[in-house]
Amino acid sequence: MKTLHQLGERDLIRQLARLLPTRADVRAGIGHDVAVVAGTAHHDFLLKSDAVVEGRHFLPATPPRQIGHKALGRVLSDLAAAGGEPLWGLVNLVAPRSASVARLRAVYQGLAALARQHQLAIVGGDTTEGPALELHVFAVGRAPRGTALLRSGARAGDVLFVTGALGGSLAGKHLRFVPRLAEGQWLRAGRWATATIDLSDGLATDLAHLLEMSRVGAEVQTEKIPVAAAVFQGLPAPSEVEGEKETAGFSKAWTLAPSPFPSFGKYAENISKLWKKRAALLHALGDGEDFELLFTVPRRKAAALEKAWRKKFRTRLTAIGTITADAGQLAWSAAGKTLDLKAAGFEHFR
Amino acid sequence: MKTLHQLGERDLIRQLARLLPTRADVRAGIGHDVAVVAGTAHHDFLLKSDAVVEGRHFLPATPPRQIGHKALGRVLSDLAAAGGEPLWGLVNLVAPRSASVARLRAVYQGLAALARQHQLAIVGGDTTEGPALELHVFAVGRAPRGTALLRSGARAGDVLFVTGALGGSLAGKHLRFVPRLAEGQWLRAGRWATATIDLSDGLATDLAHLLEMSRVGAEVQTEKIPVAAAVFQGLPAPSEVEGEKETAGFSKAWTLAPSPFPSFGKYAENISKLWKKRAALLHALGDGEDFELLFTVPRRKAAALEKAWRKKFRTRLTAIGTITADAGQLAWSAAGKTLDLKAAGFEHFR
Repeated sequence: MKTLHQLGERDLIRQLARLLPTRADVRAGIGHDVAVVAGTAHHDFLLKSDAVVEGRHFLPATPPRQIGHKALGRVLSDLAAAGGEPLWGLVNLVAPRSASVARLRAVYQGLAALARQHQLAIVGGDTTEGPALELHVFAVGRAPRGTALLRSGARAGDVLFVTGALGGSLAGKHLRFVPRLAEGQWLRAGRWATATIDLSDGLATDLAHLLEMSRVGAEVQTEKIPVAAAVFQGLPAPSEVEGEKETAGFSKAWTLAPSPFPSFGKYAENISKLWKKRAALLHALGDGEDFELLFTVPRRKAAALEKAWRKKFRTRLTAIGTITADAGQLAWSAAGKTLDLKAAGFEHFR
Repeated sequence: MKTLHQLGERDLIRQLARLLPTRADVRAGIGHDVAVVAGTAHHDFLLKSDAVVEGRHFLPATPPRQIGHKALGRVLSDLAAAGGEPLWGLVNLVAPRSASVARLRAVYQGLAALARQHQLAIVGGDTTEGPALELHVFAVGRAPRGTALLRSGARAGDVLFVTGALGGSLAGKHLRFVPRLAEGQWLRAGRWATATIDLSDGLATDLAHLLEMSRVGAEVQTEKIPVAAAVFQGLPAPSEVEGEKETAGFSKAWTLAPSPFPSFGKYAENISKLWKKRAALLHALGDGEDFELLFTVPRRKAAALEKAWRKKFRTRLTAIGTITADAGQLAWSAAGKTLDLKAAGFEHFR
């Protein structure tokens, strides 16, 4: 008997997806951040569901408002990647009988606060008894017809951009992140991006998803990747790394390391040590929950995008690489030299 | 610390619902079988989510295709109550790492077969590791603008109807039921029903929900309630009960007991014994999963409805009572005499 553990999540999804029926009015289904379906004459609807499970996405000691924030935030981050406007949500709660009512109320307060902030109505859901606390959030959003941003659409020559700073999410960002809805809607409305994805599984994995759906490859200049200061916590601070405040203004704790790094070799070595140390916990809570946007922009628009972005947002924006025609090929470099990132510890992101 | 067990599900939902934001385009939210939101110029959209959890809604030994059938069927039954047309669905899977891939495939095959039958596309979802097997299904349906059937809308004098036969669901119907989509859509299109609900928690509980949302009361003539033969299994067969085949053609096992019963007293006594015996298991698997429709029709239309129904459907239809102006009051009678159904064992339905 083959188990889920042996098969892996990605192959399971491939197998199950083949079984499931579709309809002519489905514009994008399984494999994208959101499903896109024909809604009205003017709008497509965007559909998304996601879950948080105790012991995996949060811990018994996690402040309950942050559990609710994360449960909804994960779904809003996917709507953001599509450039969607949130409309309506439903929440399925699973909880043991022994669950504290005060804790559950606080979970829903955290969720409600984020919903209110983005004009999302919570219109229904379900409550069921089960062994662990879980929240399953389903959301409907919309985008003007035919304009929703997808994982497909990147073309050779496009520039690869990322928002914010990556890594070290366990220091707290995975519970307090701001879904990049304004940024995603702006990218969609200005027709800047050819493909987008939100970073929930780590840069390497999510970039691979985007490349697969777009049938292209990419070269990433690792020295350009904006790395959050939290990644360096607990490490001997590299003398060449000095803090600077995060432009997104999310939290003072999210001080950024300077980029590009004077010495990528040292950085990679430190990252490798850190990942080895924290690998078990990272796996337990879900790797790489950055909830930043990764997207591609035609080269001829890249400079104009950066200029327009800086006028509009304080959120950091960084060009980290280029899309290539080598379908499925993901190459990493540092200062022009090809890197074997498996050896440097990047494999943990996969 | 107050626990969920002490508060109960109904009060929990009331408390949580008060925290949650809404929007002007929400026509019906928490408290109905489905949420109704403004969709296009011609249609409202219907949103629903529900869950099945191992140990509660099915058992480790349950045939996996039936688990998938039930998971989606529960949601389609709610769309049926609103008279909705199913469109798109998302499925969140929770499973332990040790789960058999073959079993999960069979679960999705059962779900896909039912989806295909009702032209529902499965457009996304999520897979997460967790302690028990669970499926969370979200579905979007539609109904012509302003016509979706709700729990509110019943008025004093309306006749109370129920489809099919009730009770004994654990004999298998809870895993194999046919969502009453055709019947619900027909009731909606013909503007027959003033209020509807699908029977998932048992007649007494679900009728109470309908009365609460409609701010009315009801008198139910218990001798008219169509009872499934499965209710009598394991009991000394009452000599006055003879089987007759179910008109819905669902399964030969669903032989109906004749109605009205010659002796309601004997019936109530047997039911009481049975419920006491099976109460623990019933609670474990979720009481009263009949997935029939309960609905109200203006008295002046009742005879015409019954005639038109018989022309259109083989599904059994039974008038079991009347709506009254006594808000929240639910009275049970047998052959004109008021019954105390708590004493007769009906309390288990609550």
